[in-house]
Amino acid sequence: MFALIGTVVDAEKVLKNHAVLVDGTEIIDVLPSDRLREYGVGEIYGGDGYLVLPGLINAHTHVAMAKFRGLGEDLPIERWLNDVIWPAELEWKPEEIRRWALLGMAEALASGSTTINDHYFFADEIAKAAQKLGIRAFIGQTMMDLVDFPLAEPEEGFKFFKRWEGKDELVKPTLAPHATNTVSLELMREIGDFARERNALIHVHLSQSREEVRAVKERYGLAPVEYLAKAGVLDGDLIGVHGIYLSDEEVKIYSRSGASLVHCSLSMAKLEARIAPIIELYEAGTNIALGNDSPNPVGVMDMFTEMRFAAVLNKVWRKRTDVVTAKDALTWATVGGAQALKLKAGLIKPGYLADLVLINARKSQFLPGREVYSHIVYSTRGSDVELVVVNGEIVYKNGVLVKLGKTLEELWEELRPSER
Amino acid sequence: MFALIGTVVDAEKVLKNHAVLVDGTEIIDVLPSDRLREYGVGEIYGGDGYLVLPGLINAHTHVAMAKFRGLGEDLPIERWLNDVIWPAELEWKPEEIRRWALLGMAEALASGSTTINDHYFFADEIAKAAQKLGIRAFIGQTMMDLVDFPLAEPEEGFKFFKRWEGKDELVKPTLAPHATNTVSLELMREIGDFARERNALIHVHLSQSREEVRAVKERYGLAPVEYLAKAGVLDGDLIGVHGIYLSDEEVKIYSRSGASLVHCSLSMAKLEARIAPIIELYEAGTNIALGNDSPNPVGVMDMFTEMRFAAVLNKVWRKRTDVVTAKDALTWATVGGAQALKLKAGLIKPGYLADLVLINARKSQFLPGREVYSHIVYSTRGSDVELVVVNGEIVYKNGVLVKLGKTLEELWEELRPSER
Repeated sequence: MFALIGTVVDAEKVLKNHAVLVDGTEIIDVLPSDRLREYGVGEIYGGDGYLVLPGLINAHTHVAMAKFRGLGEDLPIERWLNDVIWPAELEWKPEEIRRWALLGMAEALASGSTTINDHYFFADEIAKAAQKLGIRAFIGQTMMDLVDFPLAEPEEGFKFFKRWEGKDELVKPTLAPHATNTVSLELMREIGDFARERNALIHVHLSQSREEVRAVKERYGLAPVEYLAKAGVLDGDLIGVHGIYLSDEEVKIYSRSGASLVHCSLSMAKLEARIAPIIELYEAGTNIALGNDSPNPVGVMDMFTEMRFAAVLNKVWRKRTDVVTAKDALTWATVGGAQALKLKAGLIKPGYLADLVLINARKSQFLPGREVYSHIVYSTRGSDVELVVVNGEIVYKNGVLVKLGKTLEELWEELRPSER
Repeated sequence: MFALIGTVVDAEKVLKNHAVLVDGTEIIDVLPSDRLREYGVGEIYGGDGYLVLPGLINAHTHVAMAKFRGLGEDLPIERWLNDVIWPAELEWKPEEIRRWALLGMAEALASGSTTINDHYFFADEIAKAAQKLGIRAFIGQTMMDLVDFPLAEPEEGFKFFKRWEGKDELVKPTLAPHATNTVSLELMREIGDFARERNALIHVHLSQSREEVRAVKERYGLAPVEYLAKAGVLDGDLIGVHGIYLSDEEVKIYSRSGASLVHCSLSMAKLEARIAPIIELYEAGTNIALGNDSPNPVGVMDMFTEMRFAAVLNKVWRKRTDVVTAKDALTWATVGGAQALKLKAGLIKPGYLADLVLINARKSQFLPGREVYSHIVYSTRGSDVELVVVNGEIVYKNGVLVKLGKTLEELWEELRPSER
């Protein structure tokens, strides 16, 4: 049993001078910190001037792409993908994927993300890297059948799922069809059948580019959301990502379906110079989660950056200052991600998973300190994170990945010479 | 004499394994670091895995507004100003301004800004705080005559200028008329005459809100830029800020005038949900600088955040991924600011002012390390700054404000109890 002390904040409440008690894998109590002596608590972390937050959830990412950070800057998405990223990806070796995925996930943990939802190739390697760090990870092996891409054989996606199903408390397989224009309706139906049988989540790119919308229309005469509905996968087990070009009609259908939508505002602002109709989806009742998409093009694995950009980019896109409050952004990065991934997490309450982040807010950017949600979204940097708890275990502390027994600088040293 | 070692980067070049030599107030040489032994250099900072950058220039800010951080979140500009900020500002006491300004400037320094251009009330207090820190500061006392605001008496602006003219090597007074709708044409003319006589810079808000444009039109039948031209202040000594609602015609006139435009993209995205026609101004030849406007509404005093938002927000605003490259953003935050303020700074060259920033890039977000401009704009956080040099003097080092002899955490402690 241990406790984190500070101002306890989640999307429902702000409690000054409170303690969060952790026992086993769960939060067992949240109480004023002066009542802590009632419990025989061992270790205590934080204290005056700290913030305790729910672990942030990065609901869509490709962590291994840390290797490509900075490549293809300022290109539009089709050129970025076809000319830069896919050719680079064909060079991947499994061992290399594991090292870069480990780096990307270490960055995520150190910046306050306790859960990632990854979609990539050589998924076994990513899963093994996640185990080494102790991060909560949902991982899917990318599947495509309409593009000839050797790393994304559909059969491998099903096999990966079976290998990891029920295997690890923290690392969970998903089904990861690439996108609505790269997966045939037949394969998508097969994925849907498989998912229903095994109660699996489906994680898919959706309406990410004009080319995607055009191709689906040409092949099937359908909009991307209609395609998902026709394939029988549009339900509460679907996690769609991006949704940039959803029509009003698609927004309606999607919002009624119970599916979640992951908003990666910074990535899409850079690659497509567009923002999805997130406000429309949110107002129509869609569960919104946030993702960073990848260290390329975003630059960091930092959900504080994502919250900030989601709030600001939507204001400019809609030309309204009152959309996406700081509290909305925190809701999406915690409660929204948890709902998408069906985790009892995202809030700091007894019985919820002990996925927690301790922020050292003894810094000027947290003054004057009255507007806590604003300070979290607009003033916090991932580097303010001092300690991270996943599933009741301390996995990051002051620069050290605890389970791995290495510092972030050691990881930098390891990858630097061989890859430069 | 001392040296900073690392990858030396400015808007013109990237030099791996180089040393920047500082003597007195200037950069005296930039050379491969293995040739450093030719000089009898005393102290050496940085080394393998570090970046050496020109000091960033925050060309428009109100540092003391750190006190209001987080207030009025999500309000449109007129309500934010009239209902929240101006009433709060009427409560200012000079001693309090000095403390919050010191905090705001300490944050700026610690995040890599070596120069700020401030526009506020009780400017003497801000100037004294700047002296304590050793930051390069241009400071203007806000002047208004069309709004009855006791802190902004025009006469005080002229007096402040005279008191500080030629007084300090680093702290320089400017003339700071508030905006085109709050200063009469008569007063603006008087400011212009005074500025020409004393070779002073004029720092003014320009076309910041619809209300400003409407009011100038109603009073004088002029667009804001036409008003500046008519007042005789539209020339190379003018630093206009924002320019959100500039018409095509105003962009043309402004770009021909030699005046600089300070782009505060994040602030205006939050307060006005609009982006200025920066691309049009830039393409027409206007010198663009960057500013953060204030810790409210921006949340931090961090020009890395500003570069990132300037690059991304303009892409979305123009729906083009190829506008504002990482190098453009760095140019604006360094060379652009230096040109606006007429400083021989912003580049790392012999004979330039020794205003420098050392980044500890021994961190995963700087891998793989090939795309240096991208890493600076998209991956660097102000908290990666390890050492800051202003005018040849080390003024910040590993959390300590060197001249002040205090840590950032001590500043946090000092301001926290009395202001909460």
